[in-house]
Amino acid sequence: MSPAGGGGRITLLTDFGTRDGYVAAMRGVIAAIAPDAIVDNASHEIAHGDITAGAFALERYWKLYPPGTVHVVVIDPGVGTARRALVATADGRVLVAPDNGVLTLVLDAAQSLSIREIREPAYLRAQPSSTFHGRDVFAPVAAHIAARVAPDGVGPSIDDPVRLALPSAQRQGDAWVGTILLEDRFGNLITNLDGDRLPAGPVVHIDGRPPIPVLTTYADADPDTLLALIGSSGRLEIAVRDGSAAARLRLPRGTAFLCGPADGS
Amino acid sequence: MSPAGGGGRITLLTDFGTRDGYVAAMRGVIAAIAPDAIVDNASHEIAHGDITAGAFALERYWKLYPPGTVHVVVIDPGVGTARRALVATADGRVLVAPDNGVLTLVLDAAQSLSIREIREPAYLRAQPSSTFHGRDVFAPVAAHIAARVAPDGVGPSIDDPVRLALPSAQRQGDAWVGTILLEDRFGNLITNLDGDRLPAGPVVHIDGRPPIPVLTTYADADPDTLLALIGSSGRLEIAVRDGSAAARLRLPRGTAFLCGPADGS
Amino acid sequence: MSPAGGGGRITLLTDFGTRDGYVAAMRGVIAAIAPDAIVDNASHEIAHGDITAGAFALERYWKLYPPGTVHVVVIDPGVGTARRALVATADGRVLVAPDNGVLTLVLDAAQSLSIREIREPAYLRAQPSSTFHGRDVFAPVAAHIAARVAPDGVGPSIDDPVRLALPSAQRQGDAWVGTILLEDRFGNLITNLDGDRLPAGPVVHIDGRPPIPVLTTYADADPDTLLALIGSSGRLEIAVRDGSAAARLRLPRGTAFLCGPADGS
Repeated sequence: MSPAGGGGRITLLTDFGTRDGYVAAMRGVIAAIAPDAIVDNASHEIAHGDITAGAFALERYWKLYPPGTVHVVVIDPGVGTARRALVATADGRVLVAPDNGVLTLVLDAAQSLSIREIREPAYLRAQPSSTFHGRDVFAPVAAHIAARVAPDGVGPSIDDPVRLALPSAQRQGDAWVGTILLEDRFGNLITNLDGDRLPAGPVVHIDGRPPIPVLTTYADADPDTLLALIGSSGRLEIAVRDGSAAARLRLPRGTAFLCGPADGS
Repeated sequence: MSPAGGGGRITLLTDFGTRDGYVAAMRGVIAAIAPDAIVDNASHEIAHGDITAGAFALERYWKLYPPGTVHVVVIDPGVGTARRALVATADGRVLVAPDNGVLTLVLDAAQSLSIREIREPAYLRAQPSSTFHGRDVFAPVAAHIAARVAPDGVGPSIDDPVRLALPSAQRQGDAWVGTILLEDRFGNLITNLDGDRLPAGPVVHIDGRPPIPVLTTYADADPDTLLALIGSSGRLEIAVRDGSAAARLRLPRGTAFLCGPADGS
Repeated sequence: MSPAGGGGRITLLTDFGTRDGYVAAMRGVIAAIAPDAIVDNASHEIAHGDITAGAFALERYWKLYPPGTVHVVVIDPGVGTARRALVATADGRVLVAPDNGVLTLVLDAAQSLSIREIREPAYLRAQPSSTFHGRDVFAPVAAHIAARVAPDGVGPSIDDPVRLALPSAQRQGDAWVGTILLEDRFGNLITNLDGDRLPAGPVVHIDGRPPIPVLTTYADADPDTLLALIGSSGRLEIAVRDGSAAARLRLPRGTAFLCGPADGS
């Protein structure tokens, strides 16, 4: 289960920020259990409790890491409730996270998948707190797995993980009705429309604006103008060249749009 | 003095941010001296010169790391003055920091402790600047220690480190008078009242508001309501479920409160 | 080409932020190609597209790292255009970056230098995207070099890299006319005037204000007052003790000033 490198590899994704030392507490717990593990900070800047943003951030990297990597995700507004804590093995990578939907996109994409609920106290810190499972549950479990405990040892199998209810793009004649899922740091609006479903010569109709052309790259648009393009995750994104589509359009998550042939509006 | 892992382990806590390359300069200096050391960023997002915040961040992780870890702390508004630079060995961990109180909570908690003033030029960069001791003093000293220089070599013993004047909680009949020490990223207000000193069935009286109940976890409160709970560091914290007590209450550090039995106000 | 440590050493400097997972995607690609490399986050908080800020951040650390280190820089507003991608070997360190001037200060400082354009598809991800060369071009090239591919293999030599047009300080009698280049996180204004060119007993005249004294360290000024000093990179900086000169003066990049003897204004 351990990647090349010998000591295991762990990534951390949280909404903790770094300034309070909570992340360092997790790293310290890992260092004490798996001293030779390589531990990458994926991010600690997810907005507080934003499970959707965490799910999409995780989607961007989980499978690029080599098999054996242990990805820890602690966006956990339900800490202290009865929500379950999970270890999922997906296409050879191990995910350690609360059962709140943050793994949805991994579960959807995985070819092979098994999921366990964390129950075994031997892999937790003694007397876990009710407010900081990052330190007391997720970090020690991840460290034990990186240090070659089999994921199966953490607890019983489950097959009903919580999933986010993400809308699907819908066919409408020659066009597709899609939805804005979230924005990224650059102000790009990321949608649920897969690039390979696009009609030929498409444009995006949204919010009563003039059609927005779907181009190949940012440089195909004039500076400061709206464009759409297939982003690096394969999804249609709405962008402003050298600017922010989120700031320009001010459209909330869940806003629908139509993507169709340029003459089909 | 070196932890498992062989090459040494160092953590970095600063108020530098990362965007100017100051942190990377420290890491480069360490890489040149101790190429096999594992170097963790604890945080670089401490507010500029906020020694108190640094002290509490450090408290959350210093002892979770394995013995031999070298914790570097550079929150140093007095850089270039005659303030001393210290190497403290506390319960097997090594702290490298300016002598300005940022180590207060480590010094208070340590069972075994010895402190040296950094004087030995051999462990510094040649011609240290007067503005960037992170790069020229603290990073190279930490790297030499991680690479197995004994901490005793850095200079003479001292026994009068600067300490922050943090107020203590005071008993008042059945109740305790506590003080807000600081806020965390989530807007939780962290106090100086230890959880094990709480009376039975306690409530918090603060700022003329209705009593705030002390609960076990966030989920015991209604969304968007005030609660108090014992935080992950064992101290009483005032919080808002799924929100920010700091934004709600707007109370400065140093604000006093009363924590007593529900019928004792 | 590999530093002590055995598995190679890579640093990452981007304007991606961390919250979207783009940086973690780069780290995952590296981990899959060079599993034993040590990968440092230099910074991901460069302002979006701010090539100048990236160039000065890089200057602060590139040569402090040991020879063999691979420094990746992805501040790349021209991604998807015909701008070249470069591998430069400078004084034994390897720089991997778009050809947009972000390497200017490295190129200016290097004693030995060779530059290649990245062309060899074998070192890229299959079917590179047109929007995310950090993941598809720069990360895999850096990983292959860290894993001991010779930099010469990436493509043909070039000798005309893009350079930023940074103004030089100009002599004017006993004084120098300098320019504000950029600000740092602390609000210090960093200039193009080298400290070793300063006249004796100098003061700075800027923006019609009373002369600002050039002092040795922050502590030589009264709290909250303006001073100038030679910063850690050897350049004259304008600062406010325990405050922000950028917030106080509100002067844009490119603002000129005069630095001369105290009686020479």
